Amino acid sequence: MSDDFIALGPGKVDLLQSINKVGSISEAARQGQISYRRAWDMVNAMNHCFKKPLVESVTGGKGGGGAALTPLGKKVIEIYRDMEKKASQSIQEEWKFLKKQLK
Amino acid sequence: MSDDFIALGPGKVDLLQSINKVGSISEAARQGQISYRRAWDMVNAMNHCFKKPLVESVTGGKGGGGAALTPLGKKVIEIYRDMEKKASQSIQEEWKFLKKQLK
Repeated sequence: MSDDFIALGPGKVDLLQSINKVGSISEAARQGQISYRRAWDMVNAMNHCFKKPLVESVTGGKGGGGAALTPLGKKVIEIYRDMEKKASQSIQEEWKFLKKQLK
Repeated sequence: MSDDFIALGPGKVDLLQSINKVGSISEAARQGQISYRRAWDMVNAMNHCFKKPLVESVTGGKGGGGAALTPLGKKVIEIYRDMEKKASQSIQEEWKFLKKQLK
């Protein structure tokens, strides 16, 4: 994929959030309707771009292991969602003007 | 294209700006390294989504006619660039944090 080395974006953050919720990359891929391969590529890209990994594998447990977010992974979700909120709030005025011009 | 009916985005605003500069959709397409067909589709999508067109054709003149932005087209560029600037400024703090975490 062309975005293999893009550290972060909306799709990657959604994936992080899903992995955090379901504890598995394959299940997160299934729920997000992307291929397992694609989800792995996204996780690898993130882990590659950041100084410390955002996702780590977890061994043992009921399902025989899975994936979990590292503290940095969780922090990155939080920061990213904050950025979305702040960016969106900062352009309310312009967005209202544009909306009025749309059919 | 899947984004035929997306009113606006970075590619479309770049195209508007280029049309405004060069006065021609085909020349703007060439300079932006997209096909003439793709540029036309983008212009049509914008004109379709807004209440009034952003781009209009111009007849006569040296080259035998071309394209020009309407006042709304020019305003939309301005608003969009303002949005980019404001959004970017609003997330400086988070962005600095993220950058520190990147390799």
